[in-house]
Amino acid sequence: MIEAPNDLNALYAILKDLPGPGETARAATQARESTLTKPPGALGRLEDIAAWLAAWQDLAPPAVRAPAVLVFAGNHGVAAQGVSAFPPEVTVQMVANFNAGGAAVNQLSLDAGATFKVVPLDLDQPTADFTHQPAMREDAFIAAFNIGWSALPDGCDLLAVGEMGIANTTAAAALSHALFGGLAQDWTGPGTGVAGAALTLKADVVDRAVTLHGPKATGPMDMLRRLGGRELVAMAGAIVAARIRRVPVLLDGYVCGAAAAALAHAAPGALDHTMAAHVSAEPGHQRLLDALGLKPILDLNMRLGEASGAALAINIVRAAAACHAGMATFADAGISEKDA
Amino acid sequence: MIEAPNDLNALYAILKDLPGPGETARAATQARESTLTKPPGALGRLEDIAAWLAAWQDLAPPAVRAPAVLVFAGNHGVAAQGVSAFPPEVTVQMVANFNAGGAAVNQLSLDAGATFKVVPLDLDQPTADFTHQPAMREDAFIAAFNIGWSALPDGCDLLAVGEMGIANTTAAAALSHALFGGLAQDWTGPGTGVAGAALTLKADVVDRAVTLHGPKATGPMDMLRRLGGRELVAMAGAIVAARIRRVPVLLDGYVCGAAAAALAHAAPGALDHTMAAHVSAEPGHQRLLDALGLKPILDLNMRLGEASGAALAINIVRAAAACHAGMATFADAGISEKDA
Repeated sequence: MIEAPNDLNALYAILKDLPGPGETARAATQARESTLTKPPGALGRLEDIAAWLAAWQDLAPPAVRAPAVLVFAGNHGVAAQGVSAFPPEVTVQMVANFNAGGAAVNQLSLDAGATFKVVPLDLDQPTADFTHQPAMREDAFIAAFNIGWSALPDGCDLLAVGEMGIANTTAAAALSHALFGGLAQDWTGPGTGVAGAALTLKADVVDRAVTLHGPKATGPMDMLRRLGGRELVAMAGAIVAARIRRVPVLLDGYVCGAAAAALAHAAPGALDHTMAAHVSAEPGHQRLLDALGLKPILDLNMRLGEASGAALAINIVRAAAACHAGMATFADAGISEKDA
Repeated sequence: MIEAPNDLNALYAILKDLPGPGETARAATQARESTLTKPPGALGRLEDIAAWLAAWQDLAPPAVRAPAVLVFAGNHGVAAQGVSAFPPEVTVQMVANFNAGGAAVNQLSLDAGATFKVVPLDLDQPTADFTHQPAMREDAFIAAFNIGWSALPDGCDLLAVGEMGIANTTAAAALSHALFGGLAQDWTGPGTGVAGAALTLKADVVDRAVTLHGPKATGPMDMLRRLGGRELVAMAGAIVAARIRRVPVLLDGYVCGAAAAALAHAAPGALDHTMAAHVSAEPGHQRLLDALGLKPILDLNMRLGEASGAALAINIVRAAAACHAGMATFADAGISEKDA
């Protein structure tokens, strides 16, 4: 088994040598698909999902029996700039709400038959304000990455990953802007509900952060260290660990997507075992998915974060696997095939 | 309780006096929504679904504990015109597959926690070829409508409705063209997989059917009698019965939507207790949803019919209800609300 990285160089080495898909399992699933009692292609995206699951679980037929929802929580020094509509103490309050089972994602996880876990990351020590200095040092970055790496529940066969952190859509916007260019305001949106002058200020914070760190970053992981919060870094760690442990991943919204984008920049194909669970109402998210070439499964105008969209999309992925595995073939059912 | 109609006039009388929404339950759900531990509106469409469910179940908070999937199957005289890629005996073979549990919708119903039932309608007696005469007489229309009316399972709290019938996208295209105008080819698509000359023929069949019946139909229900198959008429019956019994409805794809459109033409608001579960890859479906003002919950490039999209969307509706009912309020959780 590949060990968790000790430093940035070790992390880059892991990213450059990620395991590929199980092509035999994928081919077997596609071959079975063509024998099932329906017109070819009639299940649309569900057929693509079944083949993707098979490839990245390395299992034919694929199965979703133990889905897991993981939420990482962090606090951000940049919150002091007034970029969020909620005060930073809400992060720790929401972690308590997650642990008490009261948040949206608790209900959505339970409803989808998934286990749920929240991992708070040093909430009493916010990262540094990245308009002045890097959000964290390399040791803190590696520690957060490895917390994410180690958080994957044993035996899970589908991971829905997300986050909670007051001010973290500012981090997502800064990271996206740094990785993909454009203008700061292209990537800056209302988050939990800022508007007007506060939104203008938020875009200015994003612009200043990228102006400061863009020229100094030594690569995408270093950019994530400079602009990400601990929860973004931990999500990246969980996504990489899932790849190595053959667990397909559903990416939640904008903040999760920005963390994932840093991986995609570091290694082409690093997100091949992931799907975008949904597209958020946060306007930067569609732009980010377009830049990453990801097509969301759901589009329900959600913008909550906390893995809510990813937890909901578990239902679609689980249904795709169950449908593929359970259907009769034309031969089994004695049904006439399409006219020649 | 309102009784099933004996003739077309009785049916129109029912449609003109359909029960309205439970406004008290809707208002209570919206009021609770604003107290839940999330930024206002952050669950997007899930919040709309919860309010819609409450209104049409007349229940606050709404609950999806006994969802049901209903599939009606019929055979069409117009199949003799060569409009389908599959032979008509496939309808009865697929009904056997549904009863044996081998079809896609069986897996999707089971996975969603829904009961499943298929209702075949005189499969050995196809409707008349509507390029020559009306598909059925009024007595056959009323019989099919009332089979749909009576098919709603006792105690179900959400209905997913769909169909199976070789050649029935031709019926859907003819009905949509008759109701909404445009050109025959606007509404005619590949169905289970016709292309080229066969697709041109299919559009010509649709054109001839509407030219024949359009001027003669006495109203939308008479148009459904002339161009619909028995399964379309039965879906209409189930949709109306669900309204009266306070069961919200998920409409499946193009054929289901066309049957529902006849109801919408007969009585504005007749579909207010329904949502479009998904938009099909069959091109006429998006056009139909636009014409009806319905926004689909899912867009997954499916085009199978047999209530597969509606069964899948049960997951989203059930999750919306579970999320709304189970979440903690800000007061319960002791969480700071948005900055004033």
